[in-house]
Amino acid sequence: MRITELKIHPIAIADPPLFSSYGLHAAYAPRIVIELQSEDGLTGIAEAHGGEAALAAFQAWRPRVIGADAFTLAAGLLPADARTATGADRSQTWLVPGENPGDADLRIYSALEIASLDLLGRALGRPVCDLLGGKVRDAVPFSAYAFYKLAGGGGEAEDARRDKYGEIRTPAAIAASVRQMIAEYGFREAKLKAGVFPPAEEMEAIRALRSELGPEIPLRLDPNSVWSVATAFDVASGLRQELAQGGYLEDPVAGLDGMAGLCRQLRAAGLETALASNVAVTGFHDLPAAITHDAVQIVLCDPHYWGGLRQIQHLGRLCATFNLGLSMHSNTHLGVSLMAMAHAAAVTPKLQYACDTHYPWQSEEDEIVAGGRIPLNQGCVRIPERPGLGVDLDFDQLARGRERYRRGWGHRRDDAVEMRRRVDPGWRRQVPRW
Amino acid sequence: MRITELKIHPIAIADPPLFSSYGLHAAYAPRIVIELQSEDGLTGIAEAHGGEAALAAFQAWRPRVIGADAFTLAAGLLPADARTATGADRSQTWLVPGENPGDADLRIYSALEIASLDLLGRALGRPVCDLLGGKVRDAVPFSAYAFYKLAGGGGEAEDARRDKYGEIRTPAAIAASVRQMIAEYGFREAKLKAGVFPPAEEMEAIRALRSELGPEIPLRLDPNSVWSVATAFDVASGLRQELAQGGYLEDPVAGLDGMAGLCRQLRAAGLETALASNVAVTGFHDLPAAITHDAVQIVLCDPHYWGGLRQIQHLGRLCATFNLGLSMHSNTHLGVSLMAMAHAAAVTPKLQYACDTHYPWQSEEDEIVAGGRIPLNQGCVRIPERPGLGVDLDFDQLARGRERYRRGWGHRRDDAVEMRRRVDPGWRRQVPRW
Repeated sequence: MRITELKIHPIAIADPPLFSSYGLHAAYAPRIVIELQSEDGLTGIAEAHGGEAALAAFQAWRPRVIGADAFTLAAGLLPADARTATGADRSQTWLVPGENPGDADLRIYSALEIASLDLLGRALGRPVCDLLGGKVRDAVPFSAYAFYKLAGGGGEAEDARRDKYGEIRTPAAIAASVRQMIAEYGFREAKLKAGVFPPAEEMEAIRALRSELGPEIPLRLDPNSVWSVATAFDVASGLRQELAQGGYLEDPVAGLDGMAGLCRQLRAAGLETALASNVAVTGFHDLPAAITHDAVQIVLCDPHYWGGLRQIQHLGRLCATFNLGLSMHSNTHLGVSLMAMAHAAAVTPKLQYACDTHYPWQSEEDEIVAGGRIPLNQGCVRIPERPGLGVDLDFDQLARGRERYRRGWGHRRDDAVEMRRRVDPGWRRQVPRW
Repeated sequence: MRITELKIHPIAIADPPLFSSYGLHAAYAPRIVIELQSEDGLTGIAEAHGGEAALAAFQAWRPRVIGADAFTLAAGLLPADARTATGADRSQTWLVPGENPGDADLRIYSALEIASLDLLGRALGRPVCDLLGGKVRDAVPFSAYAFYKLAGGGGEAEDARRDKYGEIRTPAAIAASVRQMIAEYGFREAKLKAGVFPPAEEMEAIRALRSELGPEIPLRLDPNSVWSVATAFDVASGLRQELAQGGYLEDPVAGLDGMAGLCRQLRAAGLETALASNVAVTGFHDLPAAITHDAVQIVLCDPHYWGGLRQIQHLGRLCATFNLGLSMHSNTHLGVSLMAMAHAAAVTPKLQYACDTHYPWQSEEDEIVAGGRIPLNQGCVRIPERPGLGVDLDFDQLARGRERYRRGWGHRRDDAVEMRRRVDPGWRRQVPRW
């Protein structure tokens, strides 16, 4: 099935001022939507990381894509380093996961793979999951993803006035925001993006969540690497009960050495807190050291930068083999990405944790999926019986996103710049900060 | 694509009296050919291990298969232990690889997966490799597989009179048989099934092969676990040059502990001989220990008992991640299996060694593939552009194989019994023997 056209749509979507240890989300986040057209007039779609560098990379790949066969894309276009390489340590701590230059080619390929699977699914009249051996779950659970936040919505002007969650700076506000998300989406697991306030405050937020949600909801805590090993040990120790039973501590410290050292200290103290990562571990190349040194017990994958859906299946088999847990990372995204994430999880038996998603932080006004936002019921995305990913583009909405991008919004994600602009002119990322 | 029928054809094929450390191949080897029919009248085929136990297992699986969807077989039928389990050590040293009771379900699933891919390929008009992301090589290299052998062909009566290779008991005869195979098939790598004569004689056979074939042909040596660590060390040391440059020493000693101990001694002595395995490592469950203890540098996979083609792709990614080599094991087989092995290798970038195959030991008279035996050119099987695996059944030949099985031939493979019957009434497998 010959690919005859690759359309690249850079868009900007409103993003609320969410805090993380990387800084503050800017008013608009970039995404790229691609359309892969085949000679028989069908179109497959995917959603990818956006911004200037990604746009240039998609454009550079375009000649390789036109004329390729949607069935054999992996053999022809999967970057060689993802196919056979080991070794080169491309993990890092200073960039938002998914913005690692070492993964740049793999991110482009990932979107192309997903779009080609969507295209093939449409051509064959089958959901994407069926092209990958079939789904092992009909509905994929996602997690409530709490953030500290400035007052105000995403974007500017009318967008910025839409603010469902208000300012979130206290444990009570964190608990209230998750309560609100659960009321709307039915999530049954929850995660707090931490590394923003001193650890004692964030521990209080976790305790507030536990108190708010009762003992059944697994909780996760993710400071994106900005704690020292000693601080992380104290947090794990103080929250040993709150983070147990399906919970985990995600990237508490920087690097595989740091994670491994923390793990040794925890186990020596009789603490079983599970350590998860999508910063110390960003690809297959990080796994040998992570496993050898028991630095990580749970990998957070992401089809957007691990190489698409088949690579997530490979990762799932590897995690099952080494008794590693598997969860899923999220970046700011819309409904096309949500469906790709859902299909990836549906065909990966080992993916037994609820996946992360930023979806509650985006709004109907920006959704590019025809028919509006994907429903989440009891926290789950149901895999539709429809061909492909199961969603179509709303081209009016896509044009709206393109227009925003054209105005110069969201061309380059830099949370540190936004943090300095809006919060603290002297701010810079520190690892460790506490 | 609903499956409406599973036809199970137990066959017996003539097999020459080949020696291994398990004993002697009997006159007939059992195989099972399956046909998977779909509601739209298409049929997918596969070839599997045969014999009474396999026949009963296929029959027991039949109710689960009828009504299943060829697209979603992996989600519905892949044995759960292959999906998520680790731990239970199912590797063994006393059985021919592929006859491990712990893999019984996985062997049935493997054949069903391959037949379903063949079925889907036919329905979609695409080669099987295209359903798995596309081939990374157009032609898959196989290896000349030398055995010690009694005089006489496989089978009985007229079959037994067909004997292309004659008796093979000496280094010169080994070299002559490989020369003959290379003349006919063009192989560019070679392997000797050892563990039959005292190691000094088998070392001479390897030296004869090196002398016969020149310095360019990688050589492998496989005594199926019957050497002590000390003996294996001496062999590796004595053949350090002969087994270098793409060669390896396969299962020289029993068990992962033995392999790891040998490896430590070799490395301490400055010997880089690569150790390969399909006895100490028979599935994903064996890999954590094999990797942790550096027991094995090359895994010999086999789509017939690792769980089909997708599991081989998963394994390939895992081997690439851990810098393990990947090769392929063979059992006595016909052309349908050969094509499945070729497609598996074609879609697995990491599979960079020439695959094993017993194919030269079988004959045109037993081939069940329409049009006769698959051609090997320069030692390679070319992946055809035809839909599915690329081969059809010759039903007259299939009936001939069924008739032999009906006569009671090859119902239960037991190389030790045959060894006692034909060679040494007191023979028994000893580990280690030398």
